Amino acid sequence: MNQFNKEIKSIDCNNFWQHRRYAGAPREECGVFGVYGHEDAANLTYFGLYALQHRGQESAGIVASDTRNIYEYKAMGLVSEVFQESRLKALKGHLAVGHVRYSTTGSSVLQNAQPFCVNHAGCTLAVAHNGNLVNAHQIRVELENQGSIFQTTMDSEIIIHLLAKSWRKGIEDAICDTMGLIKGAYSVVLLTDTALIGFRDPLGFRPLCIGKMDNGAYVLASETCALDLIQAKFVRDVERGEVVVIDENGLRSFTAVQAPRRANCIFEYIYFARPDSNIFGRNVYAFRKALGAALTREITVDADFVMPFPDSGNYAAVGYAQAARMPLELAVIRNHYVGRTFIQPSQSMRDFGVRIKLNPVKDTIRGKKVVIMEDSIIRGTTSRTRVKAIRDAGAKEISMLVSCPPTKFPCFYGIDFSTKGELIASKKSVEEIREFLGLDALHYLSIDAMVKASGADSDRFCMACFDGQYPTDINEHVGKFSLE
Amino acid sequence: MNQFNKEIKSIDCNNFWQHRRYAGAPREECGVFGVYGHEDAANLTYFGLYALQHRGQESAGIVASDTRNIYEYKAMGLVSEVFQESRLKALKGHLAVGHVRYSTTGSSVLQNAQPFCVNHAGCTLAVAHNGNLVNAHQIRVELENQGSIFQTTMDSEIIIHLLAKSWRKGIEDAICDTMGLIKGAYSVVLLTDTALIGFRDPLGFRPLCIGKMDNGAYVLASETCALDLIQAKFVRDVERGEVVVIDENGLRSFTAVQAPRRANCIFEYIYFARPDSNIFGRNVYAFRKALGAALTREITVDADFVMPFPDSGNYAAVGYAQAARMPLELAVIRNHYVGRTFIQPSQSMRDFGVRIKLNPVKDTIRGKKVVIMEDSIIRGTTSRTRVKAIRDAGAKEISMLVSCPPTKFPCFYGIDFSTKGELIASKKSVEEIREFLGLDALHYLSIDAMVKASGADSDRFCMACFDGQYPTDINEHVGKFSLE
Amino acid sequence: MNQFNKEIKSIDCNNFWQHRRYAGAPREECGVFGVYGHEDAANLTYFGLYALQHRGQESAGIVASDTRNIYEYKAMGLVSEVFQESRLKALKGHLAVGHVRYSTTGSSVLQNAQPFCVNHAGCTLAVAHNGNLVNAHQIRVELENQGSIFQTTMDSEIIIHLLAKSWRKGIEDAICDTMGLIKGAYSVVLLTDTALIGFRDPLGFRPLCIGKMDNGAYVLASETCALDLIQAKFVRDVERGEVVVIDENGLRSFTAVQAPRRANCIFEYIYFARPDSNIFGRNVYAFRKALGAALTREITVDADFVMPFPDSGNYAAVGYAQAARMPLELAVIRNHYVGRTFIQPSQSMRDFGVRIKLNPVKDTIRGKKVVIMEDSIIRGTTSRTRVKAIRDAGAKEISMLVSCPPTKFPCFYGIDFSTKGELIASKKSVEEIREFLGLDALHYLSIDAMVKASGADSDRFCMACFDGQYPTDINEHVGKFSLE
Amino acid sequence: MNQFNKEIKSIDCNNFWQHRRYAGAPREECGVFGVYGHEDAANLTYFGLYALQHRGQESAGIVASDTRNIYEYKAMGLVSEVFQESRLKALKGHLAVGHVRYSTTGSSVLQNAQPFCVNHAGCTLAVAHNGNLVNAHQIRVELENQGSIFQTTMDSEIIIHLLAKSWRKGIEDAICDTMGLIKGAYSVVLLTDTALIGFRDPLGFRPLCIGKMDNGAYVLASETCALDLIQAKFVRDVERGEVVVIDENGLRSFTAVQAPRRANCIFEYIYFARPDSNIFGRNVYAFRKALGAALTREITVDADFVMPFPDSGNYAAVGYAQAARMPLELAVIRNHYVGRTFIQPSQSMRDFGVRIKLNPVKDTIRGKKVVIMEDSIIRGTTSRTRVKAIRDAGAKEISMLVSCPPTKFPCFYGIDFSTKGELIASKKSVEEIREFLGLDALHYLSIDAMVKASGADSDRFCMACFDGQYPTDINEHVGKFSLE
Repeated sequence: MNQFNKEIKSIDCNNFWQHRRYAGAPREECGVFGVYGHEDAANLTYFGLYALQHRGQESAGIVASDTRNIYEYKAMGLVSEVFQESRLKALKGHLAVGHVRYSTTGSSVLQNAQPFCVNHAGCTLAVAHNGNLVNAHQIRVELENQGSIFQTTMDSEIIIHLLAKSWRKGIEDAICDTMGLIKGAYSVVLLTDTALIGFRDPLGFRPLCIGKMDNGAYVLASETCALDLIQAKFVRDVERGEVVVIDENGLRSFTAVQAPRRANCIFEYIYFARPDSNIFGRNVYAFRKALGAALTREITVDADFVMPFPDSGNYAAVGYAQAARMPLELAVIRNHYVGRTFIQPSQSMRDFGVRIKLNPVKDTIRGKKVVIMEDSIIRGTTSRTRVKAIRDAGAKEISMLVSCPPTKFPCFYGIDFSTKGELIASKKSVEEIREFLGLDALHYLSIDAMVKASGADSDRFCMACFDGQYPTDINEHVGKFSLE
Repeated sequence: MNQFNKEIKSIDCNNFWQHRRYAGAPREECGVFGVYGHEDAANLTYFGLYALQHRGQESAGIVASDTRNIYEYKAMGLVSEVFQESRLKALKGHLAVGHVRYSTTGSSVLQNAQPFCVNHAGCTLAVAHNGNLVNAHQIRVELENQGSIFQTTMDSEIIIHLLAKSWRKGIEDAICDTMGLIKGAYSVVLLTDTALIGFRDPLGFRPLCIGKMDNGAYVLASETCALDLIQAKFVRDVERGEVVVIDENGLRSFTAVQAPRRANCIFEYIYFARPDSNIFGRNVYAFRKALGAALTREITVDADFVMPFPDSGNYAAVGYAQAARMPLELAVIRNHYVGRTFIQPSQSMRDFGVRIKLNPVKDTIRGKKVVIMEDSIIRGTTSRTRVKAIRDAGAKEISMLVSCPPTKFPCFYGIDFSTKGELIASKKSVEEIREFLGLDALHYLSIDAMVKASGADSDRFCMACFDGQYPTDINEHVGKFSLE
Repeated sequence: MNQFNKEIKSIDCNNFWQHRRYAGAPREECGVFGVYGHEDAANLTYFGLYALQHRGQESAGIVASDTRNIYEYKAMGLVSEVFQESRLKALKGHLAVGHVRYSTTGSSVLQNAQPFCVNHAGCTLAVAHNGNLVNAHQIRVELENQGSIFQTTMDSEIIIHLLAKSWRKGIEDAICDTMGLIKGAYSVVLLTDTALIGFRDPLGFRPLCIGKMDNGAYVLASETCALDLIQAKFVRDVERGEVVVIDENGLRSFTAVQAPRRANCIFEYIYFARPDSNIFGRNVYAFRKALGAALTREITVDADFVMPFPDSGNYAAVGYAQAARMPLELAVIRNHYVGRTFIQPSQSMRDFGVRIKLNPVKDTIRGKKVVIMEDSIIRGTTSRTRVKAIRDAGAKEISMLVSCPPTKFPCFYGIDFSTKGELIASKKSVEEIREFLGLDALHYLSIDAMVKASGADSDRFCMACFDGQYPTDINEHVGKFSLE
Repeated sequence: MNQFNKEIKSIDCNNFWQHRRYAGAPREECGVFGVYGHEDAANLTYFGLYALQHRGQESAGIVASDTRNIYEYKAMGLVSEVFQESRLKALKGHLAVGHVRYSTTGSSVLQNAQPFCVNHAGCTLAVAHNGNLVNAHQIRVELENQGSIFQTTMDSEIIIHLLAKSWRKGIEDAICDTMGLIKGAYSVVLLTDTALIGFRDPLGFRPLCIGKMDNGAYVLASETCALDLIQAKFVRDVERGEVVVIDENGLRSFTAVQAPRRANCIFEYIYFARPDSNIFGRNVYAFRKALGAALTREITVDADFVMPFPDSGNYAAVGYAQAARMPLELAVIRNHYVGRTFIQPSQSMRDFGVRIKLNPVKDTIRGKKVVIMEDSIIRGTTSRTRVKAIRDAGAKEISMLVSCPPTKFPCFYGIDFSTKGELIASKKSVEEIREFLGLDALHYLSIDAMVKASGADSDRFCMACFDGQYPTDINEHVGKFSLE
């Protein structure tokens, strides 16, 4: 019934990539970046991707144009691994787009790296996409029935095919047609031979912002931290449903599709985005501190100090410590030299995976009542190991505070919680989770308190992972999940 | 006017490949191989490509199928460099196709490596192609006007698109439709999820043969030397215009297109094919010896000995020595450890390129009348350097015999002489060539003597590079060349 | 006059290593590790080095023994880069020593990687050394005059040669003889075919501790954080002047040389050692918090919050915030994906080096009075850039607190401040430094307050970098520095 | 009893090198090269080693001097793999020595690569050695008893230590002292900071010649083919027992030790040296042709043709064909693209190792009486496989001629026949060998005919591998072999 399970497996030399790293953490799918009007466009894109690396560590790619030629380089790996100086220099031109990726659709192989680039009817198109289309499968089947051939399993290729179908109308109308057909979450950056274009879905799931450099060059980026690094000034967000076209005539924009409400992903604030970024109009660090402070209004804990595990709960812990007037201790030390892969111990070593990265300061913890601050709990396995490490270090009592509500529902808009089965809160009560984690006490922030801390109305956010209210039709996905 | 000159440049780390090696020699474009019905299909394909490596040294690829999954690996480089053991093991299944390539169409980049593989409408197709289509450009423009998107500049992708257009008719009819549309030289090996298919153009430009292994597995290969290595028995050649389908029901075949004559590339005999192969029904070693012997009937040379430059003129020299009862000397020593690239000397060293590979035995040559046997002369620069090396070694008199006629016309069927401008015989008379090469005497075998040595009729061969009689319409190419 | 300036330059492919990274920070030279009595000795050593990676990032090496053979692997790079699984598996045996290095003596080349291993008179010796001998040059000259040949410029080779000279007396007497001749700082781990030996200089400059595993295996390590990772229990420190021999008869020890005082490097506490380690009998995290708290007793700052730059001032900042009841903000975000090298921007980007790793949270800093906590200031260039970044983020007022006294004198015991010229405090007054750094206020902790915070007497420590009182004769070095 | 069997195993990433390639062939140990007085000294040395690659394919190294600094690079692999352009450029200076190696003493690891280079008492020495000392072990034990430390198991290090012991006498006297102590085969090229020195053992086992370039630069090389490549003129051989010193004053020489006879290795002519080289005063190609021709005087074979296996018997076959007036066929085709390692077939393939490199031309061989010419037979396994391949190709009758006598005795002067056990002729009669090889007839050239073909007296050569008459005392080795 599922005609796609016969997949082409491209065997890559970097095949350790095919094993998921950081097993317990949710994975963001992508970061996108583009620049128009700067002679070092590819170089700036490299740095933009560097700043967005937290949004995807699996592959990186840049496509640049000097209007006469298009230059492309993509590979598996981190930005710093993928681009050597000579390669970057070969990516010439004043116009470039880039992409970092952690796969949610498509398998973890080079052919699925983005930007996706084609030479069509004498013109070039390169698409970099953040998000997840919920009707991709249906569109693909229709296109294949018309004889179209697909190279990858990526949403970006769907977008390219739809653009090609309306090609003769011109690029702007082709984008309007395409946005009328695709559904779900998409923040897209698109390079043509002569223009940089950005567009965002009408509900505004994923962030996308506009920046400007001193020389007048325009920048599009998933987060403002990318603007900071290259010293571009923040101009504004790309609006939901908006298309922004940047070319030799400057920036112009129009609204292609509209929706009655917005649905900003609140998990971007809680976990994904960098704390130094401002997204959807608000600073992430401040948001996280507010979540930590909100916890003090819901619960009082008797403890000697609050401590984060670096760096996940850092900022909520700072907010909590200040609001609760409780000492903050950075009582877990991170080994900054842990490579992305490491050799497993040949003997059995308990809790090895966590200890190689993080070691508690036993002298600080021994005999104390400790509050651990977590930003979220997905599968629970990582938190469980952490609690055990603190227990082994001699803590007398361990409470855990979580700066968001229980994560109960899968995300179909680009976050890889994958299936309900992996979400501990979809199967267990808070009390059962407390027991599973080996805690003396456990408290999650409530949905109401979270919304209140945000200072905005609840219909501003997509909170489907907490409340199961999906802002779009998800029939295609529901069918897929019911099979499993 | 040329809409294709805006090319996507994929920057590969192996970028030294982008410089043509062996500048003066004609380059064959491809070798193809396929096997059906053996549990070690990819392993056998690896060895098949190993034996066909002389047909293309730029990239290598294998696609294998275990009917449930398709496994693909391609990279720039020699077969021995591209495939490590772990990669080969990951190419599972009883069915595989492989390809080695020297680009004639498409640029020298990884994305143009073959086999070209797609997942279309739930089925998989992998195409490996040897030859050159003469109407590729025209077909591509038509397909793009219908919204098709191309990833590469390869003929194989044209073939895949045409197969997709007729997909609903079934694969065999789709192949018939496709063969009805494409023109030029093609020996194709095609993998589907469940079958190995071979087909060859109606004029039969390039070789393709069928072999069978002891366990009943079928093999398709460009040359019989690939059968020898894996100990498969030669069954027969794939006929021109024939389609051979091998699946769980065994081998069946049918004729898809017909042509009034055949046009076997005679240059395969003269230069490209391995001497231990039998192609188009005859052994290459014997053919070359016959060409050498034929020279004795056209000309008599007063000399102390005949010598080849290893290994180009070896076999014609053996034939000549035996027929002329002249001693054969292997008076040029080849350095077998010359890497594929080498560092250039920092000081100027005369004739460095030839001397690093080949060193004359001065004691043997000094004071002697020498006949150098060459299999062919393309640009003349290599031969000139060789003559000079023999002169420097002290030869008293140097004659050169060439075991084919002057090469005057470009090939549009898959051999990269490129343009007329590069062929010395298209611009100079034999006397002028003799002078350019610094020879005391020069003689080319005549077309008549060559055909007579073949033992076949002249209309059996494509000899367009010698006589300019192209067996197909070449308008598309003529247009392209007239622009330059 | 300096006969060593004609150095053999081994050209390594990893030659980017020859440029010093992290230019402004002091560099520890080495970490050492050894294990006896565990079938996975090399594997445990790998993890021990992993935990000690902060002590040296230039090269890593392991030598293992199964009593019949000795297995050695060393290379330039981080532990995670140097050792792949297959290499580690080849390092067989129940006995191993390892080393991570940042060169202070000897150039940054592979031949200077440790452990230094020789096969002498049928026995094997491998030496891993942390520290710096102050009379190395003098001993080498004497040995060369006797016909000894040196391969490297490392202190470890000096030690090996001296051991060889007394070889016939047996290894223990040979160590006593050697310790009687060498002067300076040394914590050495030594492997023979059958024993693991540790010894430490009589003043006890560098740390070295003993641990024990559940199976009875003994471990020697520079810091206790290495014991934690492999779950070994801390037994005790190796005493200054002590030799510890571990073999099939268990652990025995004796005192080889004595000194009237101890001279523990206080900079290990302030900067080098990991906060989760206990060295010289005290926890480093607690020591750093005490230094931060001590600052509140010396000075009062009017500010909105205190912030560290991650991770240098983290722990002093925590101690200060608690003692001063001032909010702590983690207002600088670290990019965890910064590779060890990165491509420089092609355009000029101000303060690029710091911004790629660290980005201030502007919303938090803007308009605020800020205290930056630094653990130390060496050259001042890094701190200056950091102050500027905070200023650019909109801080109204910036004070800096330094949790140690001004660093005025070079170290000859293994820390690479190199020469006086590089130490800003050796040339400028505190007021001049404040101005150079662009601060509104600057305060260093006093020597007295530092000693008081330590809870120990001042003659326990080597504080030569602060007060110029070198605990050993340093004539050889003084001569060297006066030449410059 | 053998104190050296506890060896330090340096685990190299290129560990496939530790398996012997070309198992059946004798292995020459080394090629040496040096140049003085050319600004591109390292570049010329690179090409010299390129030409000498056949003498050692395991490691390559160059040491260069610009008198101020010494630059060194060595690695496992072929010259073309080891030296990239950037590395070569870093080897500055007008003076360089180089070495290619196949280990006979010492294990196959990087630390045993040559030239062996030390910085001793302010001076630099780099030694490149071809040959094998027969009293190395005895000297090493004596030196170790005096406290000397050895890094490697190479003869070169013995030489360096002895030079260091006499260092104060000056380099020339130190060489005389050293040559007085070492026994066996040695052709040494030595670099000091300011001079290039060559010396050769008094019996003259291994070749070493002097060349001169147009600019006056002097060259030392194992074979004249290295002079040809860099266009140096052959001046003369270094005499046996002679020391040649080349420095800013030009070339001077003296005799250091004398011996009553010479002992040129005749196997250099038969197998090792390149046919285009002249060694010991005679051309190798001519020598091999003479050996082939000599066979016609000992035996008459009734056959259709004679054929070599490329390239081992090529030149003897040419000599034989001319003398016997028998056709020569190059009836085995070599695959020039065989990598140095290849993946083994997963299924059993008969005689795979030989067939991947060499494929017989079946059409030529079928039904014929064939003479195979071999230059030598060591273990017999390779020849056996080759005979089988010709038999499988359909030969009616197969005779083999060997252009040297049966190889019965091990070599202690630098050729790796290893032990008697591996030499088929030391255990089997000619008739037994014929049967083992599956031949219809087998004939070896006799010792007398071989000497006669050489045109020299028998006491000119070391023929110990044929007659067991070792020109030096070999007690140390005999003891070693009797243990096995």
